[in-house]
Amino acid sequence: MPPLSNKIIKQEPLIAGKRRGGRLARIAARAQQAKIAPRAPKRLIPTVELLDEENLDTLEGHADWILKEVGVEFRGDAEALQLFKHAGATVKGERVRFDPGHAKALCSTAPSEFVMHARDPAHSIVVGGNSVAFTPGYGSPFVTDNDHGRRYSTLEDFKNFVKLTFSTPWLHHSGGTVCEPVDVPVNKRHLDMIYAHIRYSTKPFMGSVTAAERALDSIAMAKILFGESFMEDHCVVQGNINLNSPLVLDSVMSGSLKAYSAANQGVFISPFLLGGAMGPVTQPALIAQAHAETIAAIALTQLVREGSPVVYGNFLTTLDLQTGAPTFGTPEASLSALALGQLSRRMKLPLRGIGHVTAAKTADGQAMQESADTMTAALMAGSTVVFHAAGWLEGGLTMGYEKFALDLDRCGMMCRFLEGLKIDDNQLAREAYRQTGPGENFLSNDHTLANFESANYRSDLLADTRSFEQWAGAGRQDAAQRAHKKWKDMLSRYQAPDIDPAIDEALKDFITLKKESMPDQWH
Amino acid sequence: MPPLSNKIIKQEPLIAGKRRGGRLARIAARAQQAKIAPRAPKRLIPTVELLDEENLDTLEGHADWILKEVGVEFRGDAEALQLFKHAGATVKGERVRFDPGHAKALCSTAPSEFVMHARDPAHSIVVGGNSVAFTPGYGSPFVTDNDHGRRYSTLEDFKNFVKLTFSTPWLHHSGGTVCEPVDVPVNKRHLDMIYAHIRYSTKPFMGSVTAAERALDSIAMAKILFGESFMEDHCVVQGNINLNSPLVLDSVMSGSLKAYSAANQGVFISPFLLGGAMGPVTQPALIAQAHAETIAAIALTQLVREGSPVVYGNFLTTLDLQTGAPTFGTPEASLSALALGQLSRRMKLPLRGIGHVTAAKTADGQAMQESADTMTAALMAGSTVVFHAAGWLEGGLTMGYEKFALDLDRCGMMCRFLEGLKIDDNQLAREAYRQTGPGENFLSNDHTLANFESANYRSDLLADTRSFEQWAGAGRQDAAQRAHKKWKDMLSRYQAPDIDPAIDEALKDFITLKKESMPDQWH
Repeated sequence: MPPLSNKIIKQEPLIAGKRRGGRLARIAARAQQAKIAPRAPKRLIPTVELLDEENLDTLEGHADWILKEVGVEFRGDAEALQLFKHAGATVKGERVRFDPGHAKALCSTAPSEFVMHARDPAHSIVVGGNSVAFTPGYGSPFVTDNDHGRRYSTLEDFKNFVKLTFSTPWLHHSGGTVCEPVDVPVNKRHLDMIYAHIRYSTKPFMGSVTAAERALDSIAMAKILFGESFMEDHCVVQGNINLNSPLVLDSVMSGSLKAYSAANQGVFISPFLLGGAMGPVTQPALIAQAHAETIAAIALTQLVREGSPVVYGNFLTTLDLQTGAPTFGTPEASLSALALGQLSRRMKLPLRGIGHVTAAKTADGQAMQESADTMTAALMAGSTVVFHAAGWLEGGLTMGYEKFALDLDRCGMMCRFLEGLKIDDNQLAREAYRQTGPGENFLSNDHTLANFESANYRSDLLADTRSFEQWAGAGRQDAAQRAHKKWKDMLSRYQAPDIDPAIDEALKDFITLKKESMPDQWH
Repeated sequence: MPPLSNKIIKQEPLIAGKRRGGRLARIAARAQQAKIAPRAPKRLIPTVELLDEENLDTLEGHADWILKEVGVEFRGDAEALQLFKHAGATVKGERVRFDPGHAKALCSTAPSEFVMHARDPAHSIVVGGNSVAFTPGYGSPFVTDNDHGRRYSTLEDFKNFVKLTFSTPWLHHSGGTVCEPVDVPVNKRHLDMIYAHIRYSTKPFMGSVTAAERALDSIAMAKILFGESFMEDHCVVQGNINLNSPLVLDSVMSGSLKAYSAANQGVFISPFLLGGAMGPVTQPALIAQAHAETIAAIALTQLVREGSPVVYGNFLTTLDLQTGAPTFGTPEASLSALALGQLSRRMKLPLRGIGHVTAAKTADGQAMQESADTMTAALMAGSTVVFHAAGWLEGGLTMGYEKFALDLDRCGMMCRFLEGLKIDDNQLAREAYRQTGPGENFLSNDHTLANFESANYRSDLLADTRSFEQWAGAGRQDAAQRAHKKWKDMLSRYQAPDIDPAIDEALKDFITLKKESMPDQWH
């Protein structure tokens, strides 16, 4: 579809074009030579294969049934409809129906593995294969901390979370809208967000998806940083596309999808499904529906640009039908995550899961139970990127500073968990048994002394192992109270990474021009 | 080994013998007709097979190396040493060494599945196969609750936890020493504990292991309840045998083991291993050591009585080498749990895991993260019985009432998780899609209304889904504060099950006579 694809690409590098060459060119060249440092964990443990092949066939067949009998609506996007019609789908009004197997076949050109390049090549991450990367929370209009309580989030909060994410080894991607900077006009805040990701971090980041032109701005700013030619065949910015489930993709989302895919940049496709509201209350139907929605939208990415990088995502959980609120870390949601992982492997596509999510209002026992259970399911399902790995509270309404710190520690635990067990002579410790006999203590054994620093992940927050007396004497602080000190310490030690002044200036110029080009919008 | 085994059986039914016939005989007959009600969950999900066969061979080989080169000491138990010598092991002093494969071969007569019979046959549980049962915490000298804080536990607390365990569908076994009733002399408290299990619950229970004669008392009281002939070939009481790791079983533990096994009653064999103290700091060595210790002790159960029921247990976790305190829910401990599950399957023996355990002092985020992670690993490892599924705090030093209530809710979640996904026409909900189209809401869909009550596990505590405003307006209670009301409500609604007055009287007579037969001991 090159004619259509090219039509979609409207992002001229407004400023960057004037500044090509010199430092920018060198940056681009450096980035192009990027070597992937082994910072993000590799999965060396198996996935959980919950369902047998027959049940997976049934679910795929049910997704095919949904795509054929019901179809997916692409609302307000004549271009998308035309692409699907041209590809052989049945288009009636805004409804697109697929013959069995057709949507899956359209997805076959998507890569099963690609790299999300970072400003610092050491932070570039592999998406797919046995790689795993964690991102912070996404989309919260509120923040909370133990000092000031819950309030609307600001650009300052946004910067804080970008800085905290940069400061930890346990998040591998800077995220996107880590919280909504509601003190900045809604039509301009994406510029400040992208700038913060670039300026205060060197990890990969996501761009805006709240309007196609904001997606294009995100791509334009990425071009200033990475260079246009580099971006032709390297993914440096991604958009997170949520379907308007059930079975709808609106023009805001499809417009952003097309912008990123046309620019050969990354797209996460994530149906947002709460069982009983956006789909049936029974999980097998929800799983099939999520699969149908995902592959229909992935098909669009490939019609826009064959081979463009895309991730098979999901945000599928249960609903408390009495309050109408989503529930997290539930057994049904975990089971569905595992099944969707299996379906993503059938598609040979990288999987996005959701991590430390919760409906809790504060970083308490509910928060950590729901978060831990969701993250574990995402990892056992084989997720290669896990969204919302730190900070989420209240079903995503709030980013909690204390919750963020607690989640980081568990992310570290999960990175270690993914490594599995390495069984070799040192780990088997024959000499240790020759030195220490039955009934004796291994604490001062040579093998213990040689290995204790590296043998185990060392929790720096969650695993308070003090005695009751020590703990009580120090003020009986629960985990959330301890976390308060932790994030403040992290933030006080934060140091901004260097940035090429020419790039910094170019980015600022771009933002100034863009902001001056339109009046503020607050809704 | 019948001559030796018989020598070990010393438990005369002191009282029960006088009261055979009549009501007791009828009770025994009723119990004998026991049908196993499907109260406890069945595992319909796969286990995680972490290690490949080659690595499992290496670990089994390393366990064999430990058993041959180092051996296991059975201290102060000439009878055990004689049994092993007679079976062909190399006995030198108190050290028993096994040729490769010998200990495993001695375990081969143990059943891979058996029933733990309960006073109410509907509460009898299958141990092994795809059955799963949860037990409350075990062994804490302290209790805590939000009203009164942390204090030594009493018989009243013990009764409370037995009652709470009886009241919930999510614990399937009444446990053993759910907390230490330190207000009762140490040499008499086992009598009150067994009585409480029998009188205030109808679920299976564990007996004493703190001295061989207390194990015999436990068996004698079980005989009053179940009848001697029934117990000849039915397991109605169990002992939890912890090894004195590394590689030691003392005479207190081996004496209790022999008492239960000789009576054809159940034994849990559980090395207590903290990496870096009771064994090397590296997990593969610890796993092999745990396996070696477990199969050596299981071998003893089979030498005492071939075919007697025994469970392959473990309590293996990491240590904070800076404080010397155990750590829980760590990635290393989870990985080891999975590996031990695989080794237990090679032995064809039922597996005991550990559940909601934590080093936290209060029911906070740390408590639930560590608990959830440990329980998940135990279940993914294939545990058929999970100890410490509710109440544990502080590495087992304290039973928390609020923690207990939170854990129960997560036990319920896990029971649902074990059921997996059932994929049938109703779950696939074709009609629902005919009724509700793209972009519409499924809340009032007929399928939702027909299925919402049964589709999902309904959390009654952890999953607070209220809005922030509702939650704040109701006092900003965290999960632990909400749990306070929950356990109090449960306790206030508790109703004691009926018991045959003749049995009750016989039990009380037994206890009175026993207590009168010895002076109080407080240490």
